[in-house]
Amino acid sequence: MAAPARPPFAAWLGGGNDVTAAFLAAAGRPDIVNLAGGLPDPALFPVEDLARLAAAAVRERPAEVLGYGPVAGMADLRAALAARLSTPALRLSAANVLVVSGGMQGLDLLGKVLIEEGASVAAQWPTYLGALDAWRPRRPRYRPLLPATDPAGLAAALAGAAFGYVVPNFSNPTGRLVPEGERRALVAAARATGTWLVEDDPYGSLGYDGPALPRLLDLDAGEGAGAGGYEGPVVYLGTLSKLVVPGLRVGWVVAAPAMIAALARARQGSDMCGAGLSQAMALAAFAEGLPERLAPRAVALYRGRRDALLAAMAAGLGGRFAWEVPAGGMFVWARARDAGLDTDRLFHAGLAAGVCITPGSAFDPAGRDRGGLRLNFTLNPPDRLAEGVRRLAAAAATLG
Amino acid sequence: MAAPARPPFAAWLGGGNDVTAAFLAAAGRPDIVNLAGGLPDPALFPVEDLARLAAAAVRERPAEVLGYGPVAGMADLRAALAARLSTPALRLSAANVLVVSGGMQGLDLLGKVLIEEGASVAAQWPTYLGALDAWRPRRPRYRPLLPATDPAGLAAALAGAAFGYVVPNFSNPTGRLVPEGERRALVAAARATGTWLVEDDPYGSLGYDGPALPRLLDLDAGEGAGAGGYEGPVVYLGTLSKLVVPGLRVGWVVAAPAMIAALARARQGSDMCGAGLSQAMALAAFAEGLPERLAPRAVALYRGRRDALLAAMAAGLGGRFAWEVPAGGMFVWARARDAGLDTDRLFHAGLAAGVCITPGSAFDPAGRDRGGLRLNFTLNPPDRLAEGVRRLAAAAATLG
Repeated sequence: MAAPARPPFAAWLGGGNDVTAAFLAAAGRPDIVNLAGGLPDPALFPVEDLARLAAAAVRERPAEVLGYGPVAGMADLRAALAARLSTPALRLSAANVLVVSGGMQGLDLLGKVLIEEGASVAAQWPTYLGALDAWRPRRPRYRPLLPATDPAGLAAALAGAAFGYVVPNFSNPTGRLVPEGERRALVAAARATGTWLVEDDPYGSLGYDGPALPRLLDLDAGEGAGAGGYEGPVVYLGTLSKLVVPGLRVGWVVAAPAMIAALARARQGSDMCGAGLSQAMALAAFAEGLPERLAPRAVALYRGRRDALLAAMAAGLGGRFAWEVPAGGMFVWARARDAGLDTDRLFHAGLAAGVCITPGSAFDPAGRDRGGLRLNFTLNPPDRLAEGVRRLAAAAATLG
Repeated sequence: MAAPARPPFAAWLGGGNDVTAAFLAAAGRPDIVNLAGGLPDPALFPVEDLARLAAAAVRERPAEVLGYGPVAGMADLRAALAARLSTPALRLSAANVLVVSGGMQGLDLLGKVLIEEGASVAAQWPTYLGALDAWRPRRPRYRPLLPATDPAGLAAALAGAAFGYVVPNFSNPTGRLVPEGERRALVAAARATGTWLVEDDPYGSLGYDGPALPRLLDLDAGEGAGAGGYEGPVVYLGTLSKLVVPGLRVGWVVAAPAMIAALARARQGSDMCGAGLSQAMALAAFAEGLPERLAPRAVALYRGRRDALLAAMAAGLGGRFAWEVPAGGMFVWARARDAGLDTDRLFHAGLAAGVCITPGSAFDPAGRDRGGLRLNFTLNPPDRLAEGVRRLAAAAATLG
């Protein structure tokens, strides 16, 4: 007798897209030019520094590094992050900081803590696909938040939402730098409506064309300070992935202590605690100024690659696509001039032609966008970027 | 004008217990004897070996260790685990293996993939509190699975459940070794009813009194093998935490390839991928036989401590509690002889007296048990165990 069929997996697994898995698979194929992921160039990895810091961390803090650690993160690292992210106007304490396994885990924990059945998320549109992945098991609805036309529109989008979500520095996928006026309006609307406002900031250190703009967290500093540190509505996500390396899986959430406590409760049931070795290495890397030593080289390298990608696009894709120059980050976002050009089809045609891109549908909470396209410029050198664009142009030509 | 109140956190945060947080906090206080957690003795940590492996992993595999890795885990580690866990009867492939950040993440991912609103979990009773923590955001109902009286009872418990959950080796909290007959009946009932059967096995290497019993996975091997490897209902969870150290946060799930693919989808949205350094160190530790070198010392040390705790309990707690001798693992489970003795109250009285234990309510899905008590014997040396028991007896005496 055949065994009965096992029950189906949870319904949310039927939704979503396989783009991340496809580009992670493509990353292992040398014949494919990978313009899809948000991957750094491994040539920038400070290998010798990290080998030294790894061995030292194990030898100098064995019980802390090799044993179970505190759910909210290593105490010294929480304190160091609070000090590092404080300004004269923004006074953070360790109680404002949760260490997470990459910014992605921060998004997952936020979903567990804030999204109930039927809840709405007000999101910058298009939306980072990793955030959509993280929240899919909680099945939220989405409303567009940015780009916003006016303060009343922002307040209407935020009112009653579980939270607002925005990547103000070189947004993913569009590369847009949200202007200071819009940032101020966002913070004011979050305060006026009593809504949590999630500021996801992986790319803040990768600005190529000018000084950094104030974080939403900074703009809320005066109003949001309480006796125990920051108490306001902004929930800030940062990561070591673009400052040093992604493989250590160290990120952080900065928020009101009540939010940090709730996220820590969720983290306890997610993976108990983070790897002590990664956290001790992050602490030592901050202490010796490793991010600051690495930043100029990364900015110079990636600025040149951005310009190389844009030049190749101008030569090969200008007839079919339009785009703006991103002032930082890792991506150029292009839109098809012809409404009939389907970028989902182009994604598959591109793979056949030896190039992997990310289609706009991956960033649309409704999955309907078929005209957008995200291209990464940080992983590949200029000649490889140009080859990828040539293959993409050839693939586009086959779509007729 | 005061800002409006922000919306409440998700309702599941109102449930559950604060025991894990309390004992993690107690772990940092030298004045408290910590008998609560499941912590190893840091004196067993192979510090020099791991310092060497850490530096070597960064230098020898920099792109893999420091960059983003595959969602399902480092390919070489998946293959090594498949080989390590295979037997002549059980043929596993890398597609049967997912690397996770500790067994706890495996439990979280299983909840995301299998628990829909209103679903039931058939669990060994009492139940590991970390599993209850992991699944709380999905809000399952619970039914008792083990100890079971007969095959019909097992089938009735499993039929229609999202999955069965059992810790067959030295169960947490009871320390019970599920006998082979009961194991066979469990696997047969899972196959007959078409139900996933989760075998959580952190303590399998910590047996003190006899040879290991076959895993549920082994008992299903003959029936569960398909062309692509194992295809049966058992979902096996293992961890490096008790074989080497917990701080690396390396665990694994072994299951049918379709289950591994679903769990990997959930993992993508949970934290994207695991730390490459931890995975490369785990791979190297397996390759040089580090777990096998460490095991005899751990077994000898912990066997002696188990016996020391039992002797202290016999001297100080026998009047108030009854217990059985656990043949392995990390815990002794005791039940109050007097139904009026409330172990939640004893938990707090114990903290005041300088000892931290885990009350039975933490392991009861309904939170009603007030007569159980879990004591850990792995962290502390014999004299400290005896002092902890003396403090606990004194605390019990104050409850009147």
